Amino acid sequence: MTPRLLLTQGDVAGIGPEIIAKAWSELVAFSRPIVVGDPEHQSRPLAGTDLRVQPIRSIDEAEPNATTIPCLRATDVDLSGVELGRISGPAGRAAYDFLVAAIDLTMAGRADGIVTAPLQKEGLHAGGLDYPGHTEILAERTGTRNFAMMLWARGPLVPHGVGVVHVTLHMALRDVFAKITTAAIREKIDLLDGVMRQLKDGPGRLVVAALNPHASDGGLFGDEEEKIIAPAVRAARDSGIDVIGPLPSDTLFVRAQRGDFDGIVALYHDQGHIPLKLLSGLNAVNISVGLPIVRTSVAHGTAYDIAGKGIADHRSLIEATRVAAKLLCARQRNEPEA
Amino acid sequence: MTPRLLLTQGDVAGIGPEIIAKAWSELVAFSRPIVVGDPEHQSRPLAGTDLRVQPIRSIDEAEPNATTIPCLRATDVDLSGVELGRISGPAGRAAYDFLVAAIDLTMAGRADGIVTAPLQKEGLHAGGLDYPGHTEILAERTGTRNFAMMLWARGPLVPHGVGVVHVTLHMALRDVFAKITTAAIREKIDLLDGVMRQLKDGPGRLVVAALNPHASDGGLFGDEEEKIIAPAVRAARDSGIDVIGPLPSDTLFVRAQRGDFDGIVALYHDQGHIPLKLLSGLNAVNISVGLPIVRTSVAHGTAYDIAGKGIADHRSLIEATRVAAKLLCARQRNEPEA
Repeated sequence: MTPRLLLTQGDVAGIGPEIIAKAWSELVAFSRPIVVGDPEHQSRPLAGTDLRVQPIRSIDEAEPNATTIPCLRATDVDLSGVELGRISGPAGRAAYDFLVAAIDLTMAGRADGIVTAPLQKEGLHAGGLDYPGHTEILAERTGTRNFAMMLWARGPLVPHGVGVVHVTLHMALRDVFAKITTAAIREKIDLLDGVMRQLKDGPGRLVVAALNPHASDGGLFGDEEEKIIAPAVRAARDSGIDVIGPLPSDTLFVRAQRGDFDGIVALYHDQGHIPLKLLSGLNAVNISVGLPIVRTSVAHGTAYDIAGKGIADHRSLIEATRVAAKLLCARQRNEPEA
Repeated sequence: MTPRLLLTQGDVAGIGPEIIAKAWSELVAFSRPIVVGDPEHQSRPLAGTDLRVQPIRSIDEAEPNATTIPCLRATDVDLSGVELGRISGPAGRAAYDFLVAAIDLTMAGRADGIVTAPLQKEGLHAGGLDYPGHTEILAERTGTRNFAMMLWARGPLVPHGVGVVHVTLHMALRDVFAKITTAAIREKIDLLDGVMRQLKDGPGRLVVAALNPHASDGGLFGDEEEKIIAPAVRAARDSGIDVIGPLPSDTLFVRAQRGDFDGIVALYHDQGHIPLKLLSGLNAVNISVGLPIVRTSVAHGTAYDIAGKGIADHRSLIEATRVAAKLLCARQRNEPEA
């Protein structure tokens, strides 16, 4: 099957419409992409190309091909005054509308999955919406309580691809210690195992990072490795998951880069983000894990500083779309015949 | 001048002698290297090569060239029973003797600097010596109280070279918060600035990493950026140093890789070691900063698991030697004429 994927434009003051345009010819090669956003803003970056926008009011009208970008008008907000590169309440409000429309269509089975271009919380706030980002909107709208993001990197430095799930993310480093529990680590190992089976068509080789330098060097620098992390790894192994650790995080990522591991459980934001951004050259992808629908995202932001200049890098969007298609393929294979 | 560099063999049960042999033909191209160690163990990896060892009792006898490895016999310990890849008290004791001999010769002005091959604390302990590693021996023997290590990476991914100095190193992650002070950060900025001026023949572009994700995102996740780190950066800038920060550590290293920065102050071990090991492909170099003598080191260990197999990677040793030569060159240039 060729998956029908909804690409949300995100914040139209950012680089969303232009990376969709730059990526388009590759996206149609393996998916049926449909943009959910504003047709006028999608037309803007097409000057001088052979691409054209097909404005649609229903996704059933969409006829995507190498030169046609179907764009579902998914907001009533007036976006005519939005300036590129400036925080805009209307753009923030519209980005919310685009996402909600994509979620509802996918939950209703009218599309197969969602790939999101970036929005940002300042725009949402200016539009009167009190969400920090996509994640909380997705959770609320799909009625999901527990889900996680997997950061995924694939590229010249990691041709096989490496995924990272974090035990903690957006909190002060001094607050992570209270959140790093055996149960929390075990939960992330299970989530990671599930996604890697879909991405790799089989069990992934997983590893959990240590918290302390040299994995505490036998207890010289901290005891979380022995007391908290190792029991989670043992329990996961006992349940049949191919996972080792805790391993010192500095050599672990070199080994992952060389192909020894497919998936990594990182304990805090920078432990996973420093190496993944280096390995991906900032072209990482976020994969939502635990939602009832497939959703992937570029891992970069709205890049206001370069919006409209035509220099934004579209590779993260291509990879995000490719991964969404791959996940849908695995889901379909695993579902019982209807 | 061609610097006279002492290469200590380190733990002869490890890969020291073989990486010296593999690197030799390149080292003589830009230095006058002299091995400080055990001539018999230096001969071992030479079978099948056109290299030979010149056993010497005084470094004045040394005649290094492309096929001759002068080796100063620098221990009285009997090393005939040392097995490759096994912890050995005699090898540990001898590694200490080699280092002390090299320090004394360099402090006395009979050699220009030291490049150390790896030793390890288990060998030292088995030899009855209670040191964790090179660092403490160097500090004690040279009478130095305050010095630091700079981790240096140069290679295909970072052709311009990037150096990292850490504010904290070998301690539990939960203990670093008490050690990250404005004064400690300021001191490391100054140290880094001094080395980068020698390595770059001019001021380096320096940056200090943030502690919290997204550099705390304006105070949402912690306040160390505003209260502790920013004041250190401001004070250093006021004194004329080209330094910025704190910047989010995940994008900072990508920018450093792309050439935006020469030197980085990292706040804890893994923050600096994860990216440096990825960027260097494990071929990083350690540079002692603040010692009265020039000393560099490979950044890897004794690699007991592959010792004697001829597969050890010698690039870190070549780079360590190249950096020592460069630092000596800069020192000589900066010294007043005698």
